[in-house]
Amino acid sequence: MGEGQGARRFHLSDVAETRLPKLPRRLRLGVVGGGRGAFIGEIHAMAARLSNCFDIVAGALSADPERARLSARDWYIPDDRAYTDFRQMAHAEAAREDGIEAVVIATPNHLHHAVACAFLDAGIDVICDKPLTTALADAVDLVERVRQSGLVFGVTYAFAAYPMVRQARAMVQAGDLGRLRQVHVEYVQDWLTEALPPDHKQAEWRLDPDRAGPVGCAGDIGVHASHLATFVSGLRLTRLRAELLVCGHPKPLDDTIYASARYEGDVPGLLWATQVAPGNACGLRLRLYGDRAGLAWDQENPEVLRLDVFGEPTRLITRGVGAGVGAAATRLMRTPRGHPEGWIEAWANLYAELAVAINARRRGAGVAPGLLDYPSVVDGARGVQFIEAAVDSSKAGGAWVELEERLQ
Amino acid sequence: MGEGQGARRFHLSDVAETRLPKLPRRLRLGVVGGGRGAFIGEIHAMAARLSNCFDIVAGALSADPERARLSARDWYIPDDRAYTDFRQMAHAEAAREDGIEAVVIATPNHLHHAVACAFLDAGIDVICDKPLTTALADAVDLVERVRQSGLVFGVTYAFAAYPMVRQARAMVQAGDLGRLRQVHVEYVQDWLTEALPPDHKQAEWRLDPDRAGPVGCAGDIGVHASHLATFVSGLRLTRLRAELLVCGHPKPLDDTIYASARYEGDVPGLLWATQVAPGNACGLRLRLYGDRAGLAWDQENPEVLRLDVFGEPTRLITRGVGAGVGAAATRLMRTPRGHPEGWIEAWANLYAELAVAINARRRGAGVAPGLLDYPSVVDGARGVQFIEAAVDSSKAGGAWVELEERLQ
Amino acid sequence: MGEGQGARRFHLSDVAETRLPKLPRRLRLGVVGGGRGAFIGEIHAMAARLSNCFDIVAGALSADPERARLSARDWYIPDDRAYTDFRQMAHAEAAREDGIEAVVIATPNHLHHAVACAFLDAGIDVICDKPLTTALADAVDLVERVRQSGLVFGVTYAFAAYPMVRQARAMVQAGDLGRLRQVHVEYVQDWLTEALPPDHKQAEWRLDPDRAGPVGCAGDIGVHASHLATFVSGLRLTRLRAELLVCGHPKPLDDTIYASARYEGDVPGLLWATQVAPGNACGLRLRLYGDRAGLAWDQENPEVLRLDVFGEPTRLITRGVGAGVGAAATRLMRTPRGHPEGWIEAWANLYAELAVAINARRRGAGVAPGLLDYPSVVDGARGVQFIEAAVDSSKAGGAWVELEERLQ
Amino acid sequence: MGEGQGARRFHLSDVAETRLPKLPRRLRLGVVGGGRGAFIGEIHAMAARLSNCFDIVAGALSADPERARLSARDWYIPDDRAYTDFRQMAHAEAAREDGIEAVVIATPNHLHHAVACAFLDAGIDVICDKPLTTALADAVDLVERVRQSGLVFGVTYAFAAYPMVRQARAMVQAGDLGRLRQVHVEYVQDWLTEALPPDHKQAEWRLDPDRAGPVGCAGDIGVHASHLATFVSGLRLTRLRAELLVCGHPKPLDDTIYASARYEGDVPGLLWATQVAPGNACGLRLRLYGDRAGLAWDQENPEVLRLDVFGEPTRLITRGVGAGVGAAATRLMRTPRGHPEGWIEAWANLYAELAVAINARRRGAGVAPGLLDYPSVVDGARGVQFIEAAVDSSKAGGAWVELEERLQ
Repeated sequence: MGEGQGARRFHLSDVAETRLPKLPRRLRLGVVGGGRGAFIGEIHAMAARLSNCFDIVAGALSADPERARLSARDWYIPDDRAYTDFRQMAHAEAAREDGIEAVVIATPNHLHHAVACAFLDAGIDVICDKPLTTALADAVDLVERVRQSGLVFGVTYAFAAYPMVRQARAMVQAGDLGRLRQVHVEYVQDWLTEALPPDHKQAEWRLDPDRAGPVGCAGDIGVHASHLATFVSGLRLTRLRAELLVCGHPKPLDDTIYASARYEGDVPGLLWATQVAPGNACGLRLRLYGDRAGLAWDQENPEVLRLDVFGEPTRLITRGVGAGVGAAATRLMRTPRGHPEGWIEAWANLYAELAVAINARRRGAGVAPGLLDYPSVVDGARGVQFIEAAVDSSKAGGAWVELEERLQ
Repeated sequence: MGEGQGARRFHLSDVAETRLPKLPRRLRLGVVGGGRGAFIGEIHAMAARLSNCFDIVAGALSADPERARLSARDWYIPDDRAYTDFRQMAHAEAAREDGIEAVVIATPNHLHHAVACAFLDAGIDVICDKPLTTALADAVDLVERVRQSGLVFGVTYAFAAYPMVRQARAMVQAGDLGRLRQVHVEYVQDWLTEALPPDHKQAEWRLDPDRAGPVGCAGDIGVHASHLATFVSGLRLTRLRAELLVCGHPKPLDDTIYASARYEGDVPGLLWATQVAPGNACGLRLRLYGDRAGLAWDQENPEVLRLDVFGEPTRLITRGVGAGVGAAATRLMRTPRGHPEGWIEAWANLYAELAVAINARRRGAGVAPGLLDYPSVVDGARGVQFIEAAVDSSKAGGAWVELEERLQ
Repeated sequence: MGEGQGARRFHLSDVAETRLPKLPRRLRLGVVGGGRGAFIGEIHAMAARLSNCFDIVAGALSADPERARLSARDWYIPDDRAYTDFRQMAHAEAAREDGIEAVVIATPNHLHHAVACAFLDAGIDVICDKPLTTALADAVDLVERVRQSGLVFGVTYAFAAYPMVRQARAMVQAGDLGRLRQVHVEYVQDWLTEALPPDHKQAEWRLDPDRAGPVGCAGDIGVHASHLATFVSGLRLTRLRAELLVCGHPKPLDDTIYASARYEGDVPGLLWATQVAPGNACGLRLRLYGDRAGLAWDQENPEVLRLDVFGEPTRLITRGVGAGVGAAATRLMRTPRGHPEGWIEAWANLYAELAVAINARRRGAGVAPGLLDYPSVVDGARGVQFIEAAVDSSKAGGAWVELEERLQ
Repeated sequence: MGEGQGARRFHLSDVAETRLPKLPRRLRLGVVGGGRGAFIGEIHAMAARLSNCFDIVAGALSADPERARLSARDWYIPDDRAYTDFRQMAHAEAAREDGIEAVVIATPNHLHHAVACAFLDAGIDVICDKPLTTALADAVDLVERVRQSGLVFGVTYAFAAYPMVRQARAMVQAGDLGRLRQVHVEYVQDWLTEALPPDHKQAEWRLDPDRAGPVGCAGDIGVHASHLATFVSGLRLTRLRAELLVCGHPKPLDDTIYASARYEGDVPGLLWATQVAPGNACGLRLRLYGDRAGLAWDQENPEVLRLDVFGEPTRLITRGVGAGVGAAATRLMRTPRGHPEGWIEAWANLYAELAVAINARRRGAGVAPGLLDYPSVVDGARGVQFIEAAVDSSKAGGAWVELEERLQ
């Protein structure tokens, strides 16, 4: 509770100081993928707008020219910056004086690596969807390119930008839970409960190994679960054994993953993700247990952390200034306690942090240590490592697979 | 349940058709009040941005020149459109070719009427905070001016723009509850539990009769409760008896209101609002009971409606496409089920609806009947009528006071 | 939190000392009313058995001989102690060497007074259902008789015997809430939502003024709400204004009561009870707000108290040893935390306390001060006073009615 | 929902017919183990009393004479039937005309087999705690003895006697969930979070391999989880792989088990039990997912089932007559909807069912098919099989272990 106690007497007007710094102007943003019919493109766009840190001014929203143009108009992008080819866009924008300063990659997974390379090569900072790539070698390649270029590269594990997830991470760091003993995470959905029509745009590419990569559920939502567990616990995943299952209708990729995991210090835990559990829309839930306290968070009720110090009453810590909530969370708040913030706000937090990072890099300026905590290209690569380990273990009948540290 | 059953097999990609129409371009918006230190100004600004229907291009954000300029820069408003006087702003903007097309009034209550008049006179559509005015005569005057001018005038009862509030209203209209028998609403907060420092910007004007009007809690949050009850029930408030109380520290205006109400058809109900109930941040909660079913909604958990058809299991209807959710709610959704939307999203819904109305008016075009359902100047005036009736009843020892129908 | 902190390191085996003392043997109990078809008779019987403090050995369970005999056999009462007349039972049992030591009165309300008199006159301790009587004069008479006889007389406000209600009361007494500012209580049910068949045994007498008394809902459940509010707050009800309403189908007595109340020290509050709110089975809910903290309890989730100290996280205090739970609650527990106790357990607590009182009285022994906290005949009479005040106020159009202190 | 729909218009007075039959008299019950200081003995005793089906008349409550006598007096057992040796008790009671008709075995695990044999040999029906035995061979032996003797033998998986667990089982059987696809169960506690004092009576024997058997957590609570999963799903456990872990302080037996399971038809699921997760008192939680619906139940909130038919609103089915609740649950109810029943009531249901079975056996009468559903000696033996398989798998590094069908 050390994190929050000092903040108790804060009031809303005191919060300004803990907020992220204002930019001198909004940054110019481009988007690749995510045009009409795509689910995630509009989410990126709303987050960028809500953050008030970006203007979306260019896009390669579809390979289909008509769709690309119409999608661009949806977002009030001028026709001459509505591209159909991401390489052309990277060149053209890099050449403009008012060219984009950052790009969002919202394509199907198999294109992430190529698109990222094109924009990194053009010196443009990148915001990329997860999973980072469909092969670990590509992910490692991106880590290397980012290191060499010095560019900003964020990965949209957006759940990690909920204020109360940051609060949870801060509390674990502060020792509020004591030494961690168990890490349990699950991500339970139901949208694949019934066979979807063959033209369902979301299901189509996410279940196609050529575009989604070697896994279905494990790559689509399993990586979120794995990231959240490591992000909040502060512990790296060191080994796992996994079963990739098809519990629902027959399909080319898994719709369910069961894994037993070990985190740094040999801390054990279970990880479960599925897309065929009726009644669960987006049930990403984390439970951590230490020798002093337990902590629980549920994405469908993201404003509240449950803290159970052993031998004391349960505490519900609600997003808001004071009352047990510290700076890591307060920094990312937009509304007072009881005025719910949601998923787009979490995304917008990620965009706001990336804008600060990008602005600082472009001005050659620094950022106060500890101010930003967005998922990096390394976090993205670790997700791909998780996927590969799960595939390897599942193929080996659930044998333990070690995760090398080469991404440190 | 008639509202939602047909929608059961909807998927996210089908929703486009039910959404509000896209505008040809974003509208130009000005803001009066709401500068640095104000709580509600930033909320308006975030809603406008998230809606993607407005660009904020001008503002009279403070009467203090320095504060006005700095506040404008916070929002990237050019210095030459950072006004310090709202009348000057109305004239100047009306004269520009690229002048604002709508204005937001986010000042303390006592200025609403004068600011609204200035912009209505300049032919500019208005988005105004609640309570509409501090005196009923002024509210009636605004109703008349809006009628004569034909301008759009929205009042920011933003809670009424939560998708599940719209769903509730649609279900009542569809008869899912049967004939209504009781209407219970409460709005419970705790921010005035302890005496605030004298310079607390929020408390300062909200507790000052010269700026807040004749009531404190009743005007600040009681009107929200009263509006929500009438909006969802579809029943006008016809009479009430009220006690205006100071339950917390001595203060010049009430911090608590208890009222017994009668709605059209003599349907009874209780209304309770307070700002001194520890543990309640923004507890706006509505419960309606009919002869067929009961319905409950809580603003702190706004994604869920509880429906209890007598003799059947409780149903939890969650925001999302299908599963009992109909068009009135679906139209205002941004994210799929389980990906929480919050309070800013509700505000942005209001902004999106007003943008459609303003765009249509300016183009001389119509809007499909039933498409828009934002609170109007009449709804705002009814709120002032509620306040006056509460004051009159409380002064008369809790006697019944009738609410005339002249605002129909 | 002072109540519980010291108890933190308690374990289950430590609890024995805080428990009620064991009796040397089970007491002999008789029952009047509550035979086959009655709802409440079986509840009394289960409570007596679970308490392990009583054996039910005699009964006048019905005026109908056949029903009386069959009902007695249901409880394994010998035929020769299955009476049809309560006066006969009082005489016969008083004359037996192994006669009953206490009697339960579970008849319709209008008989409570006469039955109580018969057994008090016979020197037998009484456990009586609420409301105590149908007229205040009768209630005052019983108070006087109990005083003069020195007999034990408990009234079955059984909700007051939930451990966490005792915990709430102890916390208020200990000052955990600070000075009380508001007392809100509601008791919401739905069983009268639809018109019941004319032979429905429960509805029949409860809606008959000749047997139920001058009120319906207010007497059946309103008195529970009123008692709970005063029991936990520790504040006497001093005045109220009330509306007795029929919100559901036409019926001879109210199915709904709205009241504005004032408690000692002029602390205000609302009281609402209704039987026609679909989705509410037994929604007795109490919320107290002080200048330091708020507290909430809900009978349908009786194991948990919600405590909100202003400026701190919400605390959920769960029934169980330690973790914020003190002696007043621990004394009445049967199972460890997380192993739910329910409504019959609360009843059994009342029976256990009354057994200790009755045993002590019969042995001429005392009871440790503060050990017992069951509702007395005075509490019962106060309930009747509440009913009379509600009737008077409602008839007078909702005027304030003072409650005299003559029952102190 | 087929289970409940027909029951919609039931009222409390209609329930009598669905209840278990009344016995002509209470049965005489003896108890072995469970004396003063034991946690579970008093639970058995309360259940027996609440059921109103048994009188406790004899006991071997402790091997220590003084403790045995005092414990017996706690329950008003006459001194001459307070035994210190279970074999002596079996003989003596079998010889009495008014001897016990059934015995409860509430000793530490390692004695279950010997005690059960003594009473079975004496022709006395048995109610035995779980796990049935500490070795599978002993369990198989008991199955055989029960078959040959024709005696009644119930095992106290009491959670399976909650009405809403019965309702869940009935709904699965009725096909409300469609074909089952996943079975998830967890049993999470925290009482071993900190090292307990060496003389802690509960921890002492439960962590001693000589008395608890080959496992700690897996045998104490894992078997409950495993039983619940199979009981509600109606599917036998066919294979599993398990890790037995010590997550908390060093101790001789596991405090945590992770298992991946396969049920009949190769339906997969996870099973997790732990005793070191702060904030979880008795978190036994089951989630089943079929191709039509999902279902969830939580022991700490046992009155409610959550049913999610895919594409429909969530349904909360609450214990009570009608409203989706069918005969299997209604038969075991004591109180109306909203008047909480708890854990002791579940135990009492088990006792009531066993009393019907014992009474019928002793009279040579039959029982209506489907009326009783208590856990049998075979269910007990399956629990021991689960334990052995978990031990074998854990020793083999988490290899799959098949569970033979010899207990069918």
